Amino acid sequence: MLETTTMPVLYGTSVTLSARAFAVQTSTSELASWKFERRAVGPHDVLIEIRYCGVCHTDIHFAKNDLGFSVYPMVPGHEIVGIVTRVGDHVKRFNEGDIVGVGCLVESCRTCANCEEGEEQYCLNGAVYTYNGIEKETGNITYGGYSNQIVVNEDFVLRVSDTLPLDKVAPLLCAGITTYSPLKRWNIGKGHKVAIVGLGGLGHMAIKFARSFGAEVTLLSTSPSKQQDALSLGAHHFAVTTDELQVQKLSGSFDFILDTISCKHDLNIYLSMLKTHGSLVYLGIDPEPSQIALVSMVFTGRTVAGSLIGGIAETQEMLNYCAENNITADIELIDIKDINLAWERMLQKDVKYRFVIDMSTL
Amino acid sequence: MLETTTMPVLYGTSVTLSARAFAVQTSTSELASWKFERRAVGPHDVLIEIRYCGVCHTDIHFAKNDLGFSVYPMVPGHEIVGIVTRVGDHVKRFNEGDIVGVGCLVESCRTCANCEEGEEQYCLNGAVYTYNGIEKETGNITYGGYSNQIVVNEDFVLRVSDTLPLDKVAPLLCAGITTYSPLKRWNIGKGHKVAIVGLGGLGHMAIKFARSFGAEVTLLSTSPSKQQDALSLGAHHFAVTTDELQVQKLSGSFDFILDTISCKHDLNIYLSMLKTHGSLVYLGIDPEPSQIALVSMVFTGRTVAGSLIGGIAETQEMLNYCAENNITADIELIDIKDINLAWERMLQKDVKYRFVIDMSTL
Repeated sequence: MLETTTMPVLYGTSVTLSARAFAVQTSTSELASWKFERRAVGPHDVLIEIRYCGVCHTDIHFAKNDLGFSVYPMVPGHEIVGIVTRVGDHVKRFNEGDIVGVGCLVESCRTCANCEEGEEQYCLNGAVYTYNGIEKETGNITYGGYSNQIVVNEDFVLRVSDTLPLDKVAPLLCAGITTYSPLKRWNIGKGHKVAIVGLGGLGHMAIKFARSFGAEVTLLSTSPSKQQDALSLGAHHFAVTTDELQVQKLSGSFDFILDTISCKHDLNIYLSMLKTHGSLVYLGIDPEPSQIALVSMVFTGRTVAGSLIGGIAETQEMLNYCAENNITADIELIDIKDINLAWERMLQKDVKYRFVIDMSTL
Repeated sequence: MLETTTMPVLYGTSVTLSARAFAVQTSTSELASWKFERRAVGPHDVLIEIRYCGVCHTDIHFAKNDLGFSVYPMVPGHEIVGIVTRVGDHVKRFNEGDIVGVGCLVESCRTCANCEEGEEQYCLNGAVYTYNGIEKETGNITYGGYSNQIVVNEDFVLRVSDTLPLDKVAPLLCAGITTYSPLKRWNIGKGHKVAIVGLGGLGHMAIKFARSFGAEVTLLSTSPSKQQDALSLGAHHFAVTTDELQVQKLSGSFDFILDTISCKHDLNIYLSMLKTHGSLVYLGIDPEPSQIALVSMVFTGRTVAGSLIGGIAETQEMLNYCAENNITADIELIDIKDINLAWERMLQKDVKYRFVIDMSTL
């Protein structure tokens, strides 16, 4: 499939930039220090000194090649917040010193129907992901945010308010937009009964947004121990889905369910909790197909949909909303040397609710 | 579960009505002549002399107890057209001699949120189906339209125009509304690319409605032999889904897919043909769960939904639309004595496109 390359490529007449990062060299290796070249800052590019990078479960999926198209060496990280340190000659929207963010996308074709509608994440010619993508400008592989700096076309750079703590803003770039976008698309607000499935990085953001939009929020979990945290984060109710009685009581209860669980699980339990014409939106990237009892969806007019992050304009809208409403992620700030331990703890579901790397420790 | 009874029950002081029908006595028996009692015509009831009854695949599912809750003897049939021959004292909307229809529903609670929104088919307290239901007025089992007459509360009786041939109208009461309702709910019209999966009773009506609403219609079938018929019925295009090349060419093509196949099949082929945010609506009642590749729905924002017939008001709207736009079903009119052969032919998919029983042959 894709060819692996670490060779820097000259971009125009400019020279490439030496960068430092933590990378995985194979699907079974740990993250370790690595030096490589970033492309030179082109006329429409912004050079960002990375301050914080959130640690997403997708980083682990890709590092371990769970989806089968990983390219190595890989520098993960797509929840990036930093400071602009250089701008290309034609950059219009950013200046040195600006606080900015970069999420999962760094380019797209810009001409397909989806790009034209601001849904670059669904680019029909293939969006360029922040890592493990193919850089449009050079043909090289993209390297993500577990790094000291990154070069990004200004159109894929987000403006970040200085009113919020930047470490807690980083996870908004993926966990934030991934939950914000479907809640907005389904017009969730006052009068809606919403359930969030799973209390991880995505789940805890989903509670905050759904609550902020005015919905009545229930957190569904397999762990009774999460009740107090769920309520503290803003959920009105909590239910344990391993308890058949609680599941039965919630039958036909919700207008909307946001399923944030990333590993394989039975969706039919949650589907049974939807009202007539209710919708469940699934956000996971488990490659295994799921067994869905379609006949029960027929007798209730229920819907299952998928949703992938959000477009650039909507990500900016989400960041602005968070600044106006004082919404950030709950995080554990770590040094880069502790990243392998952090990944292990994430696999044990032991994080409240997002690890964020302090990139000054690189 | 339910108790089987053929004992007539007195309704108020009135006596019950002797009725004739074709019924199955067990899940393995053939349809045969049977005499039974209908409830007396109550103050809000209409007595209908049945002229035509369509033959739906659901009749076979229920006769053979495929869903596990069949009660015998069973008189199938829920695509009923006839003439009003008597009305109860308080009936307001109908008079003797009116041409009327009865579909899948003969009662509902009328007070739940769904009933109040005109979606009696999703009645939260259990809609009463035209056969194999429990009659609200008597507690007896309901008996359907393979019969000479039926007694129905006027609120579940539809008005039928005399401008259309009544035998061809009968299938509108189930096959018609089942396809009309989701096309309307998803606002299908001009500018939409729509695929219909399967060319049976539902599929052929779906082509007619989708075309009539202004959509560009493709019929998807596993049988190349159906091409000419699909185009004659109004489809703009035809594709064979056993041909991988044709399937690949249609990847990401459709805004909306209506899946009318009643037996087990792989939905993922059809899902791959949806555009970003496209929706597939499934209409089958196969009790087996289906394997759905959710991750591909995430990367495309696609939706799968179920849909069940339609409410009473929407069924009337559909009948009016058909009268105004000269839409009816393509049928094979049969004598009641040939009903067992008709069921056999339906199981061989050998019908164009709906059998309708001429009830004068009973």
